[in-house]
Amino acid sequence: MASASASDSPSAFADPSAAQSPLMAEPFELSLTEAAAEIAARRLSSVELTESLLARIEALEPRLQAWATLLPERALAEARAADAAEAPRGSLAGVPYGAKDIFDTANIRTAAGSKIWAERVPDTDAASIVLARNAGSVLLGKLHTTEFADGDPAPCFNPWNAEHTPGGSSTGSGVAVAARMVPWAFGSQTVGSVLRPASYNGVVGFKPTFGRIPRLGVIPMATSFDHVGVLVRRVEDVALLLSVLAVHDRDDPFSADVPPDDYVAAVQGDLPAPRLGLVRGWFVNEADAETRLVMEETAQELANAGAVIEEVDPGIDFGRAYAAHRVMQESEMAVWHTPLYVGNESLYGPKITVYVENGFSHTARDYVAASDYRREVQRLAAGAMEQVDALIMPTASAPAPRDRTQTGDTRFQSPWSFTGFPSISVPIGLASDGLPLGAQLAGGPFQEAQLLRAAAWVEQALGVELTPPL
Amino acid sequence: MASASASDSPSAFADPSAAQSPLMAEPFELSLTEAAAEIAARRLSSVELTESLLARIEALEPRLQAWATLLPERALAEARAADAAEAPRGSLAGVPYGAKDIFDTANIRTAAGSKIWAERVPDTDAASIVLARNAGSVLLGKLHTTEFADGDPAPCFNPWNAEHTPGGSSTGSGVAVAARMVPWAFGSQTVGSVLRPASYNGVVGFKPTFGRIPRLGVIPMATSFDHVGVLVRRVEDVALLLSVLAVHDRDDPFSADVPPDDYVAAVQGDLPAPRLGLVRGWFVNEADAETRLVMEETAQELANAGAVIEEVDPGIDFGRAYAAHRVMQESEMAVWHTPLYVGNESLYGPKITVYVENGFSHTARDYVAASDYRREVQRLAAGAMEQVDALIMPTASAPAPRDRTQTGDTRFQSPWSFTGFPSISVPIGLASDGLPLGAQLAGGPFQEAQLLRAAAWVEQALGVELTPPL
Repeated sequence: MASASASDSPSAFADPSAAQSPLMAEPFELSLTEAAAEIAARRLSSVELTESLLARIEALEPRLQAWATLLPERALAEARAADAAEAPRGSLAGVPYGAKDIFDTANIRTAAGSKIWAERVPDTDAASIVLARNAGSVLLGKLHTTEFADGDPAPCFNPWNAEHTPGGSSTGSGVAVAARMVPWAFGSQTVGSVLRPASYNGVVGFKPTFGRIPRLGVIPMATSFDHVGVLVRRVEDVALLLSVLAVHDRDDPFSADVPPDDYVAAVQGDLPAPRLGLVRGWFVNEADAETRLVMEETAQELANAGAVIEEVDPGIDFGRAYAAHRVMQESEMAVWHTPLYVGNESLYGPKITVYVENGFSHTARDYVAASDYRREVQRLAAGAMEQVDALIMPTASAPAPRDRTQTGDTRFQSPWSFTGFPSISVPIGLASDGLPLGAQLAGGPFQEAQLLRAAAWVEQALGVELTPPL
Repeated sequence: MASASASDSPSAFADPSAAQSPLMAEPFELSLTEAAAEIAARRLSSVELTESLLARIEALEPRLQAWATLLPERALAEARAADAAEAPRGSLAGVPYGAKDIFDTANIRTAAGSKIWAERVPDTDAASIVLARNAGSVLLGKLHTTEFADGDPAPCFNPWNAEHTPGGSSTGSGVAVAARMVPWAFGSQTVGSVLRPASYNGVVGFKPTFGRIPRLGVIPMATSFDHVGVLVRRVEDVALLLSVLAVHDRDDPFSADVPPDDYVAAVQGDLPAPRLGLVRGWFVNEADAETRLVMEETAQELANAGAVIEEVDPGIDFGRAYAAHRVMQESEMAVWHTPLYVGNESLYGPKITVYVENGFSHTARDYVAASDYRREVQRLAAGAMEQVDALIMPTASAPAPRDRTQTGDTRFQSPWSFTGFPSISVPIGLASDGLPLGAQLAGGPFQEAQLLRAAAWVEQALGVELTPPL
């Protein structure tokens, strides 16, 4: 359906047999799983990989502007320490990563894309940053985000076409992973901020069940919906990261005390063909014609490869759910922003201002009614997921719009942030304008192993790996 | 500390060796567990028990006014069917019960203590009513509640002293169980509506973890906090009921999908002396002098009997938690009541009017801030519970006040409704005015087996059974 490189095939309907990765010539081209394996086997040093990534960044950063703060010396020192260790210190040992600039990093500026916090330097690391470090990953820098992870765009450029938005709010994370500047990056999602930039940039984006990954030290947006997520190249990379990050944090009242599964094992070996529930209805009505067509083609291709594809109607009013999500999000944003915003209104961008001001105007009854509908949506979604391994639908209503003043349409990603159920976007091809398209798979709460297994099978069956024409 | 009968010993400091049950002369005096065993062994028929209870009700109802709707013919027909069955149909077979009049009962008036719904007859049974029937329990009637389970009093009289409130909102349930009109009753608790009437009437009251017992078909008050609970004579009766009621209801978005434990086994045999966390602080500062003293005496008596008693400070600002609970409760009440209340204001009592009107005035920010503190309280409470089998504190700040225009002080019961953690009140004696006092034990989420085991040990160690002077 799509080729390895957009420059080879701008159509979404190319021969899938062409979807071969090119021979890896440079370390920066390695995926997270590949890089970790090469370093663990001492076929590659962490310093070589870090230097390769830094060279790649040096070459591309002027055009892409993914990084808010780059830490070359610090990263190289960590890489040297990783190389000097007698044995690998953790499953991510020596592999660099980037973190969205709302993840607190001790003594490293964390500005959240805001004017008001432009020079803010936290004292401590976010819990997830600590987990990444404990697993041996090397912090290469901080990645641009939209202002406080809301809708005012980050300065980044979409590596597929500089005139289109790269999405948001984990903008730099999507751009950097797509451009092979770093094999993995932290993002966060409150509505659609991991899966949408993943889809728009042609990479894999995942956010787990609400509470599955600790989020203390990540600057809040809306406390009922904030999820830590990751952007990577392959589904197996998600499994590797989740095996490190799925930890109960006793200090985090939102952290879930649910035992993790063996996520890495779940995506290895002969994967069984999954049973997938194709959600049409609202996702068909609201998608553009090409997205709709590519989604149907993808479903057919998956069925041909052995998946059981059945249409599932969860009975959810997705439009109403989106409106309810927004009421709750705006209300929670207003609470968090009040002490910062009041008196500093001129330092806030136009889009976040609307959200915060809306939040001020909602009544408790608005919020409670929205919350009541959320429970109903959770119940309906859980019911729909019982008969299948995952639901499947387009990640976004269209490819990245040709408009850098916005970050795209959050509606299709919203249901799984609203419910708190895990979701993942995998690339499925390129639209006729050369921009990537993604399919979103969603699973039941804490069913990440099952979801990742299904997504890995889909990824294998489609054989799509997208490399931007840089 | 207290005697078997208040008329024997109006002081709270009597000899515990006197706490013997009198010889059971009449079936109505049997506890739920005793009655179920007698019927199962065919030493007592369901008809005999039902007739004994109906005679008791006939004798006392004019003074106590516990029943909103009594169903003698229907109950006797069910009792005859139970007696005619070849084998007992369920663990509650043939034992009558009453349900608070906010539990929907098909074709039986369910008025919720309201003028506006005075003649309302639902078409279907509440899920919990179905579970009770499936276990063989016989519905004897509906018990008075305060108006929509809020603060406007029910017509009932406290069996210990008719000039004192019997509490609320499960008022009839507390009165009927205390007066031996029925061995068990459904109540519900949103703030303190099961444990407070249990304490004020000298019986055992229990509400489980939020979501543990299905609540579809119970008229809502505040959807984040509504719990189905039970009022009984003994802790073992709670275990028997919970083994019937702890069911996941797929149709109820608030129902928890958590496997039950063997609650009956948990309270049987040689019970180990528990480790109890005595919460002083706010509960000491806000209690009256006698409640404070009796609680300390009780703790000393439990320590003498072998319990490990240690003071625990969960770090919770209980006053702030109560205020937050009220903001959320009022807001949720306003949502549910809006369609009924607007245009019918004159049919609402003064206390519920204040709650609903307050709910109209709260902002979404008020609600979110309260909800944020709730999460923090849940985290702190869970932490405090980890080192002990249960926390222990007075159930109420004082015995039932001499004031029938109100239903007493909800503050001490509120924290465990606010958090959604399970709690149980057991009688600990009588105050100098002859009114009952209770101790409240609270456990961690879904730790009901552990909580009930601790409560059963406390009940045995104290040997208090309170019989009102009727």
